[in-house]
Amino acid sequence: MTADLVTFGETMLRLSPPRGSRLETTETLRFSTAGAESNVAIAASRLGVDTTWISKLPDSALGRRVVTDIRQHGVAPEIVWTDQHRQGAYYLEHGGEPRGTSVVYDRSDAAVTTATPEELPTDTVEEAAYYYTSGITPALSDQLRETTRVLLETAQSAGTTTVFDLNYRTKLWTPTEARATLESLFPYIDVLVVAERDARNVLGLDGDASAIATALDDQHGFETVLVTRGDEGVLALSDGRVYEQGAFETETFDPIGTGDAFVGGYLASRIRGDPLTTALEQGAATAALKRTLDGDLAVVTQQEVDRVREQSSGGISR
Amino acid sequence: MTADLVTFGETMLRLSPPRGSRLETTETLRFSTAGAESNVAIAASRLGVDTTWISKLPDSALGRRVVTDIRQHGVAPEIVWTDQHRQGAYYLEHGGEPRGTSVVYDRSDAAVTTATPEELPTDTVEEAAYYYTSGITPALSDQLRETTRVLLETAQSAGTTTVFDLNYRTKLWTPTEARATLESLFPYIDVLVVAERDARNVLGLDGDASAIATALDDQHGFETVLVTRGDEGVLALSDGRVYEQGAFETETFDPIGTGDAFVGGYLASRIRGDPLTTALEQGAATAALKRTLDGDLAVVTQQEVDRVREQSSGGISR
Amino acid sequence: MTADLVTFGETMLRLSPPRGSRLETTETLRFSTAGAESNVAIAASRLGVDTTWISKLPDSALGRRVVTDIRQHGVAPEIVWTDQHRQGAYYLEHGGEPRGTSVVYDRSDAAVTTATPEELPTDTVEEAAYYYTSGITPALSDQLRETTRVLLETAQSAGTTTVFDLNYRTKLWTPTEARATLESLFPYIDVLVVAERDARNVLGLDGDASAIATALDDQHGFETVLVTRGDEGVLALSDGRVYEQGAFETETFDPIGTGDAFVGGYLASRIRGDPLTTALEQGAATAALKRTLDGDLAVVTQQEVDRVREQSSGGISR
Amino acid sequence: MTADLVTFGETMLRLSPPRGSRLETTETLRFSTAGAESNVAIAASRLGVDTTWISKLPDSALGRRVVTDIRQHGVAPEIVWTDQHRQGAYYLEHGGEPRGTSVVYDRSDAAVTTATPEELPTDTVEEAAYYYTSGITPALSDQLRETTRVLLETAQSAGTTTVFDLNYRTKLWTPTEARATLESLFPYIDVLVVAERDARNVLGLDGDASAIATALDDQHGFETVLVTRGDEGVLALSDGRVYEQGAFETETFDPIGTGDAFVGGYLASRIRGDPLTTALEQGAATAALKRTLDGDLAVVTQQEVDRVREQSSGGISR
Amino acid sequence: MTADLVTFGETMLRLSPPRGSRLETTETLRFSTAGAESNVAIAASRLGVDTTWISKLPDSALGRRVVTDIRQHGVAPEIVWTDQHRQGAYYLEHGGEPRGTSVVYDRSDAAVTTATPEELPTDTVEEAAYYYTSGITPALSDQLRETTRVLLETAQSAGTTTVFDLNYRTKLWTPTEARATLESLFPYIDVLVVAERDARNVLGLDGDASAIATALDDQHGFETVLVTRGDEGVLALSDGRVYEQGAFETETFDPIGTGDAFVGGYLASRIRGDPLTTALEQGAATAALKRTLDGDLAVVTQQEVDRVREQSSGGISR
Amino acid sequence: MTADLVTFGETMLRLSPPRGSRLETTETLRFSTAGAESNVAIAASRLGVDTTWISKLPDSALGRRVVTDIRQHGVAPEIVWTDQHRQGAYYLEHGGEPRGTSVVYDRSDAAVTTATPEELPTDTVEEAAYYYTSGITPALSDQLRETTRVLLETAQSAGTTTVFDLNYRTKLWTPTEARATLESLFPYIDVLVVAERDARNVLGLDGDASAIATALDDQHGFETVLVTRGDEGVLALSDGRVYEQGAFETETFDPIGTGDAFVGGYLASRIRGDPLTTALEQGAATAALKRTLDGDLAVVTQQEVDRVREQSSGGISR
Repeated sequence: MTADLVTFGETMLRLSPPRGSRLETTETLRFSTAGAESNVAIAASRLGVDTTWISKLPDSALGRRVVTDIRQHGVAPEIVWTDQHRQGAYYLEHGGEPRGTSVVYDRSDAAVTTATPEELPTDTVEEAAYYYTSGITPALSDQLRETTRVLLETAQSAGTTTVFDLNYRTKLWTPTEARATLESLFPYIDVLVVAERDARNVLGLDGDASAIATALDDQHGFETVLVTRGDEGVLALSDGRVYEQGAFETETFDPIGTGDAFVGGYLASRIRGDPLTTALEQGAATAALKRTLDGDLAVVTQQEVDRVREQSSGGISR
Repeated sequence: MTADLVTFGETMLRLSPPRGSRLETTETLRFSTAGAESNVAIAASRLGVDTTWISKLPDSALGRRVVTDIRQHGVAPEIVWTDQHRQGAYYLEHGGEPRGTSVVYDRSDAAVTTATPEELPTDTVEEAAYYYTSGITPALSDQLRETTRVLLETAQSAGTTTVFDLNYRTKLWTPTEARATLESLFPYIDVLVVAERDARNVLGLDGDASAIATALDDQHGFETVLVTRGDEGVLALSDGRVYEQGAFETETFDPIGTGDAFVGGYLASRIRGDPLTTALEQGAATAALKRTLDGDLAVVTQQEVDRVREQSSGGISR
Repeated sequence: MTADLVTFGETMLRLSPPRGSRLETTETLRFSTAGAESNVAIAASRLGVDTTWISKLPDSALGRRVVTDIRQHGVAPEIVWTDQHRQGAYYLEHGGEPRGTSVVYDRSDAAVTTATPEELPTDTVEEAAYYYTSGITPALSDQLRETTRVLLETAQSAGTTTVFDLNYRTKLWTPTEARATLESLFPYIDVLVVAERDARNVLGLDGDASAIATALDDQHGFETVLVTRGDEGVLALSDGRVYEQGAFETETFDPIGTGDAFVGGYLASRIRGDPLTTALEQGAATAALKRTLDGDLAVVTQQEVDRVREQSSGGISR
Repeated sequence: MTADLVTFGETMLRLSPPRGSRLETTETLRFSTAGAESNVAIAASRLGVDTTWISKLPDSALGRRVVTDIRQHGVAPEIVWTDQHRQGAYYLEHGGEPRGTSVVYDRSDAAVTTATPEELPTDTVEEAAYYYTSGITPALSDQLRETTRVLLETAQSAGTTTVFDLNYRTKLWTPTEARATLESLFPYIDVLVVAERDARNVLGLDGDASAIATALDDQHGFETVLVTRGDEGVLALSDGRVYEQGAFETETFDPIGTGDAFVGGYLASRIRGDPLTTALEQGAATAALKRTLDGDLAVVTQQEVDRVREQSSGGISR
Repeated sequence: MTADLVTFGETMLRLSPPRGSRLETTETLRFSTAGAESNVAIAASRLGVDTTWISKLPDSALGRRVVTDIRQHGVAPEIVWTDQHRQGAYYLEHGGEPRGTSVVYDRSDAAVTTATPEELPTDTVEEAAYYYTSGITPALSDQLRETTRVLLETAQSAGTTTVFDLNYRTKLWTPTEARATLESLFPYIDVLVVAERDARNVLGLDGDASAIATALDDQHGFETVLVTRGDEGVLALSDGRVYEQGAFETETFDPIGTGDAFVGGYLASRIRGDPLTTALEQGAATAALKRTLDGDLAVVTQQEVDRVREQSSGGISR
Repeated sequence: MTADLVTFGETMLRLSPPRGSRLETTETLRFSTAGAESNVAIAASRLGVDTTWISKLPDSALGRRVVTDIRQHGVAPEIVWTDQHRQGAYYLEHGGEPRGTSVVYDRSDAAVTTATPEELPTDTVEEAAYYYTSGITPALSDQLRETTRVLLETAQSAGTTTVFDLNYRTKLWTPTEARATLESLFPYIDVLVVAERDARNVLGLDGDASAIATALDDQHGFETVLVTRGDEGVLALSDGRVYEQGAFETETFDPIGTGDAFVGGYLASRIRGDPLTTALEQGAATAALKRTLDGDLAVVTQQEVDRVREQSSGGISR
């Protein structure tokens, strides 16, 4: 089966105490799963796209849990199972200001960090319309740096549109390390998504979002550059034209996964053939809806996304 | 036993996932019951009024659940039990903006939709000081359109003050259908409660709240018209005089049931002989307290209502 | 995509209070989904079989919930969506003796009761190796009586092995009604599963399980007859030979779904080509594991089933 | 309104950690209310008897909670409210053997311990068909010793049948103290319920249950004596005849409140005019059902009680 | 072992329904423990100070629960155990405006109210660097008024710095009663913490926070006076100099315990030798963090406090 | 401070779905901590022994959680904190037969696996009366094999009684690997605890428990050998005499940690100077109580242990 969208990366267990409680004392944890690449796959799948998520997992109840959650939202998993290595996890405490949200990663030696191009289903990548991975993946291991490059190269060679979200993570590598690796991947990337902050801190770019997008395009010749700007929305540069999309106002329940929801919504729209402006709007709407939900996932419907786009939400419909 | 207030209508099961969770994935639901007419009865009962709620329920654990909840707050149920037809339910997802709160009704073929005047305790209605029902009831079935009319007529003939909240529900009928039915009931109504929005959309009235109240009074000769205006409070027209009551500011936990709490608080005050302005104030205070509570019900005390009226709440009393 | 196993039927929401609590008073409900045909599909899918579940669902969050749960376990749903009719539900109270487990069905006017052969994907049925439905389905509506017959006939004509679990439900029809309908379906059934009790009460058969199986085979010429006997296991008659399989001892957490788990385990084994005795053993092991789990579903792995078969379970493995 | 049954006594808050957890460490408690006399009232009310519960409560959210729970099951509360004194509570840990169930009482200075006959609605007692209180009540304070006596005397003088469950509590008084007080109440008691163990330890009686009942009847001339014997059921002596009723087998979820459920079931049956043997059977069935439920209360229906009596429970009805 | 900080006072059980729920109807309560003096001890202990909490508790699972919670955060308990008297408790309902947070105290006859200086470990107080108690303690009983005085006097005589938070509680005594008792303690107090509101209402002082601090210093000659001002922070007067510290902005989850967190943070800083301005800042940061947490306790780390002080919190660190 | 008992080993996070639920689908996990050596320390501490637990932990909220739980029960932690390596965890699913209880370990690269004798507080070990560790510790890493040996040797040289529970874990090493390492530690062990099954499978011993104990004593000259036999209790050999202690019957809620509870109870008794028979009885009683509790920990009191020894438990005390 040929998928419209294929993504590759790590999905972790997510363990989170109730609001107002701490890991040091809580008796219960909320248990779910999350990862940038599966988050994007799930958002896109829920919005109507045939989606496959590729990864490597330990053959245990923990690895199976990841697959169960992925399938729930219609994404087809293609998994390399192994008896060795761990299932990564992260512990998340939500806290209002000034405490902030804190994350304890426990992802060392995850099975996916050992994934080689040889064992992964590269034909699935080649047959896809779009291929997506994020800058988290090459940061996880030397092997994954190599695997990320090979898969992007394979996809691009096969005519698959490659999409890459820079997604810099402080806890995984330094800006300097990240920059070297990430820039080496740029030749294989068609659509680059990058947070304005990361563009400055990691890629060393100056100026406003428009300047950043232009600089990236000038230097690396992407098909499309999307510069995400948090509350200020997103700026796109494509075919030399600049597009801007504001963020929808939200009452935020859980901000984690907002960026992935944006990309998933954007890609679902592009894959079905919508123009860039529509896709940006759908991405922003998907991201806004995600923020009202607990967990990393955009558990939304196309109808809900459309209603946000039409600004017709609000109040109670009964 | 002669009740001060009698109400008649449907009470549904209410099933709601935890905040931030969705019906598509949640493992647990919060389970309660709710209905405009029992909500009003409960608010009034908790504020000291002898109250009876009349309905028709399936003779099952689900029907009994409704009665259990009603009694908890001191309301006396008078129930026609049946072995046929369903117990209605509604599924409620709370969502911050832009998702909004969404409701899935599952109330078709509810037992109450088959209730005939003959099987209901009309003497209880005749002996009451006040009788209340809402515009949801006649929208539920042809039988209930007839039953609603007969009960209002019966009450009014017996000298019981009849109170009717227009309560237009988009998911039950069109504005045109609603208008025809509702206006045919107006001759039997002493006190009309209507949301400003419904007055415009359903009854086709123009102008501000005052103009709406005046038009209604001119056309139908109500004893009292209450035009509710959401955050802007309520406007009353009675004996040719206009009264205005603002809404109290609230940190809202759950807005569902606000209007019913207003009516319950208002009626409790009127029934004990308070002047209209006091009743409006009590209604507004009851509504404000309700918004801080989960569920449709105004689980409040007279002392709390009085404290809100005196604006002396706030802070922690210890 | 050609499935190994296709099933068709109703899946309901399942709402259940915590142990020791009652529907009349509980604040929370455990929320899941269940139905004989999806239970079988899920058990078989988890044990390695490509499985499709066909049904008709309301296009709402409730209908989507059913699909979400089905997919979680790898079953591919093929759904006819409709804007009309309900999503069926059942309320379940677990109670130790002498209270027993009680069920309140709320499944009237479910969308699936209107499913016609024309709107269902009959080609999926024709291309399958096995097709399964149960005696609950034709009991739900006149339309479904017709649809059940057509689908069985279609399957058999196409060379698909048809499997039917008699599954008599007291609350849906009388034994006399059931017998007439069910016997009219027998010509289209290759493998009949029937509880010994139903064989007596509904089909009017006498004697022990072996006599029942023989009588059924004599009268209707099934390829295989499986007579399930609760704690005493199952008796199979196939090609004139009788096979017996005992039940594994269990500490039961929730008995609902035991029979479906047996059929799912049995079919998964047959579909992969195991001999009948192996399939009976796998069915019994799957059923035993199911009884240790909350909910209708056999959330098990092949490895666990194998361990039960080898009797090597018990104790704590660490 | 004249009640069939009036009871008087203390109802406490009940706070209980989840199974397997301890008060020393648990983050959550299950919160309900319980008391011998309200337990009896609730069981009887649910089985169709008009019941009133009399008590004295602090005018706080805690006192109101007690009333809310009482009303839920149809019992009419007649409460003396006070601004002083406490709401009693007890903490309950369920533990399998050898830990056993442990109770920490926190009932000192409860409002009810100050209740005088003058402030209580003695006319309600006089107009009732039956009046019930237990041996816990006079153990709570000197005032309640007096009040218990006066109410029993008042009831008996008015022709109300008085029922008294000895209910000895080790943590409240010594057997010697208890005996003196309780025996002084016997002249005012028509129906005495006493556990065989208490008859021995507190009243100093010997022999088997029959000998105990005979001795009590000989010495004090009760209308009826019921000697409860735990798993062995109950023995009744009335009009010189002995009746025996076995206990129904149960899978026990929570044994607390079994005796009260028995008395409530027994009284409901007697009050509706059933013969003694039927009442004993109903009492035993109600007690058996209670043991399957969390909390002190017999949240049962007449239909369920009848089904247990007919031994037709068991299995799943669907 | 010599502690840096010793505190003495009452710790209560804290019982709280879920947000949006009421004590009148909730099935579950959140269960923790809290008291001004243990709150301060826990905050200080978590920030690195050797801390001992002295009290008197009932020898029951409830008393042990208090000790368990205290130890969890590294505070060493020194307890006088008794078989008599109660474990105090308080019931807390969080409610948004206009309902507000409400507290039902159930602390009468708590074991601690009988604590005499003779039975308490006064040597532990004498050997400490700092001794802290609050104005709640002498309000609880005549005995505690005496005990509070003796312990403060003992501490001061031994060269231990005495710290006292006035902590006026309306529900325990009148301003006039409080003033007489509290002012009689002032000679034994080195560091006085007082809310601006209490200074006005209880001590009868006028003017702004600075005027209040000056008046207190003039009249009673404290080493340091801290006037807390809610959202406006705190003003300190020490050695004739005035210091001001603003409050950090917070998204408040639970405000209870804010003042204790401030004192705990302040004292931890002073005890380690920080200058007053640093201590004020740490106190304010600890208080701000506490407000993001459920329960009375400042379950924080020094690292988190430092980050708030550096204003570098915010966003998600990953 | 000199401890009576010092233990050293790994404590893991314990994550467990609700009963009847699976890791593959559960939304919530119960969160606690557990490890053989801290389990023993906690049981002993709760029974009155001054106890210290030594370990190495990551300096994160997860490592701090372990310390918080340890302290809760009065154990003094002495921790080497590190910024590297993981906090170990295990996922536990309780399942009735035939599913059984299953454990997924996630303990690779735990901080403790890198603990060297040099960084650990060996003086604490030397000053203790008893030192305890288990056979899990040397199985975790090469470093820990060395560290275990050095600490045992250090303890024994200093006159500290060394206690070792063989605790063979299939998932950590083979019997052959285990035997070589464990036997090399025997010279440094005074009191050996070994399960009869491990004695056979790992140490290759034959015969009954008595023969095993004798063989071990003959070959290695232990001061005391305790052979644990599950439901059959324990056999001790000391000074050439054999003692037997049966297991108390239990209704088991959670069997994990039974053996550790036995050792903790036994050691607490020995440390306070009880004779061996008393200690065996206390160990068995502590183990029986533990089985009624959720989690690895024996959250018990001396009073409860004594009541079990006196066989006086059972029934409800009220």
